[in-house]
Amino acid sequence: MSAPDIRPASPDPAKLSLNTATIREKWGLAQAIEGCARHGIRGISPWRDQLAAMGVQEAVRAIKAHGLTVTGLCRGGFFTAKDWKDDNRRAIEEAHALGAQCLVLVVGGLPQGSKDLAGARNQIRDGIAAILPEAKQAGVPLAIEPLHPMQAAERACVNTLEQALDICDALGEDRRGAQREAGAGARGTLGVAVDVYHVWWDPKLAQQIARAGKRRLLAYHICDWLVPTRDLLNDRGMMGDGVVDLPRIRSMMEGAGYDGAHEVEIFSRLDWWQRDPDVVLSTCKDRHARMT
Amino acid sequence: MSAPDIRPASPDPAKLSLNTATIREKWGLAQAIEGCARHGIRGISPWRDQLAAMGVQEAVRAIKAHGLTVTGLCRGGFFTAKDWKDDNRRAIEEAHALGAQCLVLVVGGLPQGSKDLAGARNQIRDGIAAILPEAKQAGVPLAIEPLHPMQAAERACVNTLEQALDICDALGEDRRGAQREAGAGARGTLGVAVDVYHVWWDPKLAQQIARAGKRRLLAYHICDWLVPTRDLLNDRGMMGDGVVDLPRIRSMMEGAGYDGAHEVEIFSRLDWWQRDPDVVLSTCKDRHARMT
Repeated sequence: MSAPDIRPASPDPAKLSLNTATIREKWGLAQAIEGCARHGIRGISPWRDQLAAMGVQEAVRAIKAHGLTVTGLCRGGFFTAKDWKDDNRRAIEEAHALGAQCLVLVVGGLPQGSKDLAGARNQIRDGIAAILPEAKQAGVPLAIEPLHPMQAAERACVNTLEQALDICDALGEDRRGAQREAGAGARGTLGVAVDVYHVWWDPKLAQQIARAGKRRLLAYHICDWLVPTRDLLNDRGMMGDGVVDLPRIRSMMEGAGYDGAHEVEIFSRLDWWQRDPDVVLSTCKDRHARMT
Repeated sequence: MSAPDIRPASPDPAKLSLNTATIREKWGLAQAIEGCARHGIRGISPWRDQLAAMGVQEAVRAIKAHGLTVTGLCRGGFFTAKDWKDDNRRAIEEAHALGAQCLVLVVGGLPQGSKDLAGARNQIRDGIAAILPEAKQAGVPLAIEPLHPMQAAERACVNTLEQALDICDALGEDRRGAQREAGAGARGTLGVAVDVYHVWWDPKLAQQIARAGKRRLLAYHICDWLVPTRDLLNDRGMMGDGVVDLPRIRSMMEGAGYDGAHEVEIFSRLDWWQRDPDVVLSTCKDRHARMT
């Protein structure tokens, strides 16, 4: 027997957010902010290189002027790189300045020349533990993003939601304990970013989203998995063009209590990055409403 | 703390087996059989299209004449395709004729036009259940091969060892029960094929190999994960050229009681498929001894 066919109500258009990677080939952050405002997209999630290019204070001013919500900052992490500590400190400061709902952690892959996956994973857990006090103090929730297993060597050797939640457990961010501390329903200090591209295949997806619960579900990223996929990194699809059952995954998230943004993040060198960003944004709006 | 650095003794050269996909662009099955004999490789694992081209009886004769062990037949499965039942029956007959140690099941991806991953997974479980009695009767162990999550849409939506073992459990092939039935240490009728390319990234790899145990560990395939990987299907590396800690994974397998073949399976359109197969085979022998 197949799982019941859950078709939730259409998503709230106010929850749509633009991860600026989606249009980064043609627009800087200032243009992205104006574009979101022009298209009635209420959330934005910038990347730090674009933030540096615009200047943090200028970005804060423009985002505030347009009344946008910063649904995340991309990215901290890379705990297996040399300068990880200073870089994550700066990322926390920037996320704080932006009032970002979370700092997304892409945790890093194997160190150069290493095959020691278990060792890298321990290094990552210890790195997160090391920056957690500063994140707490700054009021910046840290969202561990499990990346697709095909990125294990190069970008992140946290590759399943279960593994990310085990790290949350190991670092003492017990869900019930934290609820007692901060009041049920509040956003936790440490949790996960659920990107459908990375986790859609996972047989334990529903179970682990339920396990995470509202406090640990800090971000929800959407796009689609294309068949065929021509590149391991930059061939993501627009919602509706691939095989991911987006309404089903959203209903898992909502069932676990998630009521945050739906952030579109599309790396697409061959297709969407080549198009007029205004067309990309109106397509995102349309597909979000109809296909997710 | 990192996991202890387990460096097992060098592998037994007699365990090396050649999956004929490794040299399939230049050699047919007859040449592969002769090549294995010439290079002192004692095991072979043919693909069914090559077997059909050579003729089953002629292949059986040549394999027997050279004293090779058939460590697996590739492949049955594709339970989400239309003609799955007849095709798997024929595969079981061929595996029986060859005396293959197992029939490898690449279980199939999403049906054309479908996004129902849970439904496809149920279909696969039911398909395996349907062919299991015939496999038992023929004495052909079925090895479910979890494929890398990047193949979930197109080739196999069984994507972790845990998921494959859950299917074994669901189909009543209880490890202890089966041991009582058939004597401890015998090869089970239903188990898994562990291909390092598909599972090396899995945080639960050691745990699930231990869970599988000797009876369910039916095959062990080796190659390497290249950085960068340029193609999702045909860019596998020769052992030692990538980031997979092959000695560590072998020691997990041996720790669980596996004493079967080490089967080299390299899909490499850009590199190894272009080379002289005699050079490929001698490289396999050398790398197996030094890097696995």
